[in-house]
Amino acid sequence: MAMHPLHPLFHPTSVALVGASSDPERIGGRPLRFMREGGFEAPVYPVNRSQAETIQGLPAYARVRDIPHPVDHAVICVPVAGVEEAVRDSIAKGVRAIQVLTAGFAEVDAAGRALQERIAGLCRDAGVRMLGPNSLGLLNVPTRFFATFSTALNGLQPRPGPIALATQSGAFGSAAYAAASLRGLGFSKIVATGNEADVDVAECIDYLVDDADTRVICAALESCRDGACLRAALLKAARAGKPVVIMKVGRTALGAAAASTHTGSLAGDDAVYDTVFAECGAWRAGSIEEMLDIAYLYATAGRLPPNADVGVVTGSGGIGILMADDAGERGLDLPPLPDAARTAALELLPFAVASNPLDMTAQVTAVPQGVPRTLALMLDHTGYGSVFAYLAHVGLSPERFAATQAELVALRRRHPERLMVLVMLSRPEVSAALQAEGIAVFEDPSRAVQAVAALARIQQRRGMLHLPPPPAPASAPLGDVATEDGAKRVLAGAGLPVLPERICRSAAEAAEAAAGMGFPVVAKIVSPDIVHKTEVGGVLLHLSDGPAVAAAFDTLMQRARAARPDARLDGVLVAPMLRGGVEMIAGIHRDPTFGPMVMFGSGGTAVELFKDVAFASAPLTPERARALLERVRSTQLLRGWRGGPHYDEAALADALCRLSEFAFAHADQIESIDINPLVVRTEGAACLDAVIALRPHGTQEGGHAVH
Amino acid sequence: MAMHPLHPLFHPTSVALVGASSDPERIGGRPLRFMREGGFEAPVYPVNRSQAETIQGLPAYARVRDIPHPVDHAVICVPVAGVEEAVRDSIAKGVRAIQVLTAGFAEVDAAGRALQERIAGLCRDAGVRMLGPNSLGLLNVPTRFFATFSTALNGLQPRPGPIALATQSGAFGSAAYAAASLRGLGFSKIVATGNEADVDVAECIDYLVDDADTRVICAALESCRDGACLRAALLKAARAGKPVVIMKVGRTALGAAAASTHTGSLAGDDAVYDTVFAECGAWRAGSIEEMLDIAYLYATAGRLPPNADVGVVTGSGGIGILMADDAGERGLDLPPLPDAARTAALELLPFAVASNPLDMTAQVTAVPQGVPRTLALMLDHTGYGSVFAYLAHVGLSPERFAATQAELVALRRRHPERLMVLVMLSRPEVSAALQAEGIAVFEDPSRAVQAVAALARIQQRRGMLHLPPPPAPASAPLGDVATEDGAKRVLAGAGLPVLPERICRSAAEAAEAAAGMGFPVVAKIVSPDIVHKTEVGGVLLHLSDGPAVAAAFDTLMQRARAARPDARLDGVLVAPMLRGGVEMIAGIHRDPTFGPMVMFGSGGTAVELFKDVAFASAPLTPERARALLERVRSTQLLRGWRGGPHYDEAALADALCRLSEFAFAHADQIESIDINPLVVRTEGAACLDAVIALRPHGTQEGGHAVH
Repeated sequence: MAMHPLHPLFHPTSVALVGASSDPERIGGRPLRFMREGGFEAPVYPVNRSQAETIQGLPAYARVRDIPHPVDHAVICVPVAGVEEAVRDSIAKGVRAIQVLTAGFAEVDAAGRALQERIAGLCRDAGVRMLGPNSLGLLNVPTRFFATFSTALNGLQPRPGPIALATQSGAFGSAAYAAASLRGLGFSKIVATGNEADVDVAECIDYLVDDADTRVICAALESCRDGACLRAALLKAARAGKPVVIMKVGRTALGAAAASTHTGSLAGDDAVYDTVFAECGAWRAGSIEEMLDIAYLYATAGRLPPNADVGVVTGSGGIGILMADDAGERGLDLPPLPDAARTAALELLPFAVASNPLDMTAQVTAVPQGVPRTLALMLDHTGYGSVFAYLAHVGLSPERFAATQAELVALRRRHPERLMVLVMLSRPEVSAALQAEGIAVFEDPSRAVQAVAALARIQQRRGMLHLPPPPAPASAPLGDVATEDGAKRVLAGAGLPVLPERICRSAAEAAEAAAGMGFPVVAKIVSPDIVHKTEVGGVLLHLSDGPAVAAAFDTLMQRARAARPDARLDGVLVAPMLRGGVEMIAGIHRDPTFGPMVMFGSGGTAVELFKDVAFASAPLTPERARALLERVRSTQLLRGWRGGPHYDEAALADALCRLSEFAFAHADQIESIDINPLVVRTEGAACLDAVIALRPHGTQEGGHAVH
Repeated sequence: MAMHPLHPLFHPTSVALVGASSDPERIGGRPLRFMREGGFEAPVYPVNRSQAETIQGLPAYARVRDIPHPVDHAVICVPVAGVEEAVRDSIAKGVRAIQVLTAGFAEVDAAGRALQERIAGLCRDAGVRMLGPNSLGLLNVPTRFFATFSTALNGLQPRPGPIALATQSGAFGSAAYAAASLRGLGFSKIVATGNEADVDVAECIDYLVDDADTRVICAALESCRDGACLRAALLKAARAGKPVVIMKVGRTALGAAAASTHTGSLAGDDAVYDTVFAECGAWRAGSIEEMLDIAYLYATAGRLPPNADVGVVTGSGGIGILMADDAGERGLDLPPLPDAARTAALELLPFAVASNPLDMTAQVTAVPQGVPRTLALMLDHTGYGSVFAYLAHVGLSPERFAATQAELVALRRRHPERLMVLVMLSRPEVSAALQAEGIAVFEDPSRAVQAVAALARIQQRRGMLHLPPPPAPASAPLGDVATEDGAKRVLAGAGLPVLPERICRSAAEAAEAAAGMGFPVVAKIVSPDIVHKTEVGGVLLHLSDGPAVAAAFDTLMQRARAARPDARLDGVLVAPMLRGGVEMIAGIHRDPTFGPMVMFGSGGTAVELFKDVAFASAPLTPERARALLERVRSTQLLRGWRGGPHYDEAALADALCRLSEFAFAHADQIESIDINPLVVRTEGAACLDAVIALRPHGTQEGGHAVH
């Protein structure tokens, strides 16, 4: 495999520390101290204008150019005024990678942004990769390359382990690092990308997938500059079998308001992030604690659960119910215990409640090895992907727990493909010994269930990844889509179902057209200047004979002229009036980061009142279209709701696919599409109204999202 | 104040421990060991048939009657076969309270249930209060009365503190106790009620409200035997200013399935529990960890936040956004920072993002006392009920944090009515010192926000408690409500809006009635034997003249006779046909535990698809009726939705009040009421259809829920 472009950033062979300080507590002094304390083995050259002969015991240099050795990597933490010179010097010296830890760039003002762009340009031109500016640095834990001034490392020496952490915000990274370290979790790499003038979180994820020391990736974003790269990195991780647990802050209106005031980053549409993360096999965590819980579970178990079925063994009925509640709310299943297992459990523990959860009752304490034997029969008799055992506080008494512990370890070795999770309070050495054998230990039952549910969902998502096709070439102009009639003709051309309807220029033509299609009909005004027809009274329904249609033509034209004297009027659209069917809505929303997204939702008021809408990246496959239907509750209305008929879901899914393919192929032109309503009938479906908005000229740059 | 009936249970003056063991590790040995280790001062008399002279160093007796001193309290942990005799002996000796820790009663089989009822009867007849059976016992922490065999006390000596814990499940209590103890939380009283043959969780809450050592009450239920007592206890707590944080397990279908197999308890309707807890000022926690977080926060702060406004001060924009997200999702507000505060913040920290969250940026480290000064100006310039400061991991460095800590403490003393919450990693002695000053410390930002949100909600709920009136006397028979016509007449008599409509016995009468009320009209079959009229084609709409009504009469009668030859047919109901308005539903559901609940929800499919429905205990006050409307999202449809009209919410609220009063007054007769639809018009409202189901004869026992 070729070396990853970020390899020099994480694996320097020699490091200049520009702005190094003799004071090990100052910003310029800490990275040097951390690396010396940790035992980083490559040469480190402190650089400081002070002309000190040594800094923290190492020979020091006034400028990078003065270093009489090759320099591979520069860590810059001089004041902002000196950064450009330090970058130029470092490039001149031949470094392959630069970290700019100094702040005061795009996050502050326009001058800072200009300076940031200048140094990024210098690096780009020289083929040098740059982390930052305004980065908290990075850690390569196995090599002890601790290039950060984060005080989180004071007294919390990084431990090596399989968890990687890539965050935009350094403070976010510090918080997660410190919390994880207090829990004894170990890291492979930690990186804070800061202002992301060059390297971003997406590229770090891409690097970490290749990193042999990393087994699970935690990431945190406030914004995303390049949706295609983020998608590609997440998909690469999914296919490589490395779970990504990702946080994207700014998920509510309050949070988004806070985001808009923060570090020059524009938060994207939150529902779109949810969608993209899921499509790319990642899990979005809601809190730092949840993110670490999931990473801990995976780092311990070393695998995802093979399915979403779980079994619970407990000595407390109440805790069992609590865990069943949590499991149900989070999409896990508790299949019933097979009869053979029930029988065996009752032989072992006659007073047990031998179902799932399996309540061993206090009786278990009277049966030698009652817990591991109960768990064994659950594992042996079922295919549950994960099993939980609630063991109260027995782990606080290592001597009493020793025999049980040994049996549990043996059991885990017999069933290495399952997740085994103990919920108990325990002494650190007990948890550590269990974890070394792949058995996870949680203190809180609800958090244990939450972590297993996240891994089960990651497993499910890997079965239905969105693998984007290559970007479409520039598409031929769509023609006139400014009217309902024009939009529908374009959609019909793309294979979407549109009723036979006709645009008429006179009352007589309208009456004749209606007679040809059968009564009743509807009539609607057609004008490129009137998007919202109902606002001008531009729609008439239930027209049941020729004279009514002719009269409707005149009425509509008069109303339109009265309401919008300047509007161009193309005529009146006459269409059959459908009865029955279920109204849904479908559409396209061009996300500035992730490109065209398909929107599907409930018709009527539910889409707004209940947010009964879901998104998916275009183009859809038939399988992904069906999955999109499942994410909208109103889809239930198509399935014999309250004894009613079954409607044509296949036609609906097909319409969504065609819409998505059309939008993907014309992503360079289309801003949005609204089909409202899209009526689903017992046979077929029909787009009853459609609006297409094109992208303003000058913003169309190729067939895909802006890169 | 008179002594509380449970006082003897918690404050024994002398204790017989029946089933005491010399082995301090056995069930009968542990309570004695715990009390001796803890220093319980009242006399304890071990009782064991072994005729040992001493047990764990105390003089022992073969039977309770042999104790040559007065005995106030008996703790029974003999095998189940000996329990009845021990109870009889204890009663004969004159105890005031008995705890039965032995298991094997109603939770096992019918014989166990019979035995349980027998011993409960013995106690009741003797005026002795009984805890259990199948109880894990109780702890009065200040007096060191540790009457439990829970191994959670091994190595986790209970610390006194303001938190009380009352749970049904002993294992649940042990889990919460152990987790809390590891966090350093202290308790006043802990009690596990087990099978609740006499004392239940509700009565324990009632007791704990009076307990001077208790400031906040944690409770956990699997079922509730007496809804009125639980309500009364929660309301007493709310009015006494003691927050109750309560868990009710069995909230999902999976959990409810688990509950139905557990300890002979029937889980109630989950939405009803939510409603009752909220109406009585309690907070329902979803996990043990959440329950303890909230209890910790209140125990530390000593008060509820005065309002739901919060301010966030952070050194990390990302964490600020995360906390804003969490706050918004949990019903807290982040009002903008006033201009004066913004100006002051920017004077102090020119690079700060001076909004709310207030991002101090890394600059804060360069400003002496930057954190407390920033927090001070937020507190001084706003009325935020709670302020958060995110301080990363600074609490891990006590010496560096000392000056900040002193300033924060001074600030807290200046603003004692606000909640001050720090989010940081810290050493235990740092957290402890802050907590002693009323400043709470959380490690995880999301959990900190969650706990504050819960206390803010408790504060809000105290402003709108449901204070049930005295039970209604037995009500006069309602008469015939078996038909739509009968039900509507009864509801109209109760003051609910019903259209002028008429039951007709001939086609001619129907046509004449219609002419009197104006066309169009609707016609519906009326039969006490046909509840679902649409199933027999029993409703005809849009009847626009007399002949159509006459024909409809004949059609309806024929259809009904064909579909249900045995049905009694009262005739045809003719009613004006409404146009416009918004369809909602309203009803009454008699909960077996909590009595009549008002149901209000969306019309159409949303009530089922989106659970757009809310409950409230009857009777409603006008204020509570308006609050009920706010809990249903479809209420938005009444408020100029998409430019439409405003509908008559006052008429709707009035209808709900009258319905609730009627149901409360006739609670002895009514099983359920469905008004579907209840159409809300621009002026007034109308019950278009109504079904009243009466309780079966023989189940009606007075005007209130069964006690």
